[in-house]
Amino acid sequence: MLKRHLLTPGPTPVPPEALLAMAKPIIHHRTPQFKKVLKEAVESLRYMFQTKNDIFIFTSSGTGAMESSVSNLLSAGDKAIVIRGGKFGERFAEICESYGVIPINIDVEWGKAVDPSQIEKILNKNKNVKAVYATLCETSTAVINDIKAIGEIVSKTGAVLVVDAISGLGSVEFKTDEWKVDIAVGGSQKGLMIPPGLAFIAVSNKAMKMVECSTLPKYYFCYKAAKKSADKDDTPWTPAVTLIIGLVEALKMVKEETLEGAILRQKRMAEATRAAAKALGFKLLAPEAPSDAVTAIKLPEDVDGVKLVKTMRDIYGVGIAGGQAQLKGKIIRIASMGFMTQWDTIIAISCLEIVLKQMGYDFEFGSGIKAAEEVFSR
Amino acid sequence: MLKRHLLTPGPTPVPPEALLAMAKPIIHHRTPQFKKVLKEAVESLRYMFQTKNDIFIFTSSGTGAMESSVSNLLSAGDKAIVIRGGKFGERFAEICESYGVIPINIDVEWGKAVDPSQIEKILNKNKNVKAVYATLCETSTAVINDIKAIGEIVSKTGAVLVVDAISGLGSVEFKTDEWKVDIAVGGSQKGLMIPPGLAFIAVSNKAMKMVECSTLPKYYFCYKAAKKSADKDDTPWTPAVTLIIGLVEALKMVKEETLEGAILRQKRMAEATRAAAKALGFKLLAPEAPSDAVTAIKLPEDVDGVKLVKTMRDIYGVGIAGGQAQLKGKIIRIASMGFMTQWDTIIAISCLEIVLKQMGYDFEFGSGIKAAEEVFSR
Repeated sequence: MLKRHLLTPGPTPVPPEALLAMAKPIIHHRTPQFKKVLKEAVESLRYMFQTKNDIFIFTSSGTGAMESSVSNLLSAGDKAIVIRGGKFGERFAEICESYGVIPINIDVEWGKAVDPSQIEKILNKNKNVKAVYATLCETSTAVINDIKAIGEIVSKTGAVLVVDAISGLGSVEFKTDEWKVDIAVGGSQKGLMIPPGLAFIAVSNKAMKMVECSTLPKYYFCYKAAKKSADKDDTPWTPAVTLIIGLVEALKMVKEETLEGAILRQKRMAEATRAAAKALGFKLLAPEAPSDAVTAIKLPEDVDGVKLVKTMRDIYGVGIAGGQAQLKGKIIRIASMGFMTQWDTIIAISCLEIVLKQMGYDFEFGSGIKAAEEVFSR
Repeated sequence: MLKRHLLTPGPTPVPPEALLAMAKPIIHHRTPQFKKVLKEAVESLRYMFQTKNDIFIFTSSGTGAMESSVSNLLSAGDKAIVIRGGKFGERFAEICESYGVIPINIDVEWGKAVDPSQIEKILNKNKNVKAVYATLCETSTAVINDIKAIGEIVSKTGAVLVVDAISGLGSVEFKTDEWKVDIAVGGSQKGLMIPPGLAFIAVSNKAMKMVECSTLPKYYFCYKAAKKSADKDDTPWTPAVTLIIGLVEALKMVKEETLEGAILRQKRMAEATRAAAKALGFKLLAPEAPSDAVTAIKLPEDVDGVKLVKTMRDIYGVGIAGGQAQLKGKIIRIASMGFMTQWDTIIAISCLEIVLKQMGYDFEFGSGIKAAEEVFSR
């Protein structure tokens, strides 16, 4: 009998309060009843994004909202700096190319954070760069980038800063307004604790002005249409009603815990995961700039990461993630994101210990847990 | 933010499959639709009880079904042997007294199992004993009694054997027919994985014959009424429809795992709990006859058991049980019962380690988990 525990970096576990709210009979979206829900969702999202900017809710995955930040702000032939330090940074470059925007890629070694001064240098040389695309928490490598420093640099120029905050929102510190982020992108299925299907953006005035000049084609993700509807507590197209209802419930929980409290809880889980990994004799993929939303652990050559993840999931019911692209089989990723507590971390580490032992890896049982418990006891 | 984990010896966690089934729109109980459900429930219960006997489902707690085994079988002035080795053994004696039945109590030290030869001696001396009341797993002390041996003894006499199997059913080996148990009592909220509200009995022919001679008053729990209805896949009174629907789903899961598999899973959890307790320097309350459904751990005098249980539950979201009556504050009880897996055990042990350290108890972090992981790895 399996009892499933999910520690993947999205989707994350959904709190029962949100599940129950989503199980209620569906309501129509063009009603005062739903307007109230939508208004509350937007207000809660402003708290999560730490912003006073406009918030648009898209019924799409995060990728749709990422695409919107290209199609609404830029025109074909425009130049944009793209930080590529993992799979999700690469995605921004792919979107730019799909729209005829010219990406100036900053390729960062997987596992490292971008050096903000590199962005400054390129901006100084290329006065016509329209946008900088950065990732808060690069889920594929578990790296956290210094968005505050990047915002300081970009805000002094005419370019806008677009941040994929999908994996970090609600899990790590992220201050849209204070850090001068023009477009912040979020998703439902990570720190916001709801199933996949919703994406959110917070748009600054600077970004909204740039929308006026954009000539790229857009319709479903059109910011002007979104803004016009949002001003009336509405959406241009049929929204995923139940997901938004669930979101309101999930974010009520964050407000009760406080965002600071939620971030601290997730930080302690990540610290415990890192401590356990080290105690088990492993190295981190991102030792210098580790994200507190997900931890990437390097595996020794003789440990098959694909088999490890599969065994933990299929035999023991504990879902963690493996590596993507060139990291496939070489790392495991354990999330500390959303509706998780220290016991989720303990389960993941204990399951890791059980399966590693089966696979012949040499270590002492309980040593990972010991390190984790020491962190949780601080 | 709390995420609750329940490791109490009833109620136990309810599987999502059962929760979802119970959340479906209610149906009426006098319909072919419900008859089908009831029939399936009874067939599944026969599997759980390992019996071909009649099964009656009562909408009550287990205590109601325990009472029914007195009021339906006996008459005022009858003598019955009652094994009192804990709070639930005592309950049988209280019920007997309430009905004017004379209990011949076998008082067993809390933490010990009854010696079956004691029952044999009393039966030999008192030829007019009508019934023997025994407990399979005495939840208050975590002791397992040797029902097989008791059945061997009682079956040779005119007395019936009534077993409170509420805490053990579905969690430990229990064979109603093979062990010659005349009345076996079960409850919904333990190994059967459903919320409280249902009780079950399996009644032998020997017991049904005794019903004919009983002059004690009964109505709601009347076996004759129950039998008459059961023969038509019905119940005499309105049953807890949703709980029975949930039961069917929960028992589908047991059938899929097989009863043997479920018992083995719970046994391993109990073994791991016992190993962890010893590794942490504790003694068991029932070292000689430990039940695999729940483990009672003795605490040193300087560890306040009430505070320990309260802290684990209210601060860490991990529900275990303390001691009852004279054991209050002196033991903790950790269940390995129902919809639980090894990760529930790991959570309980890790939480115990965290809180014990806070309370100043001296031990090495991870030592309990190490012992548990060794058991799970065997």
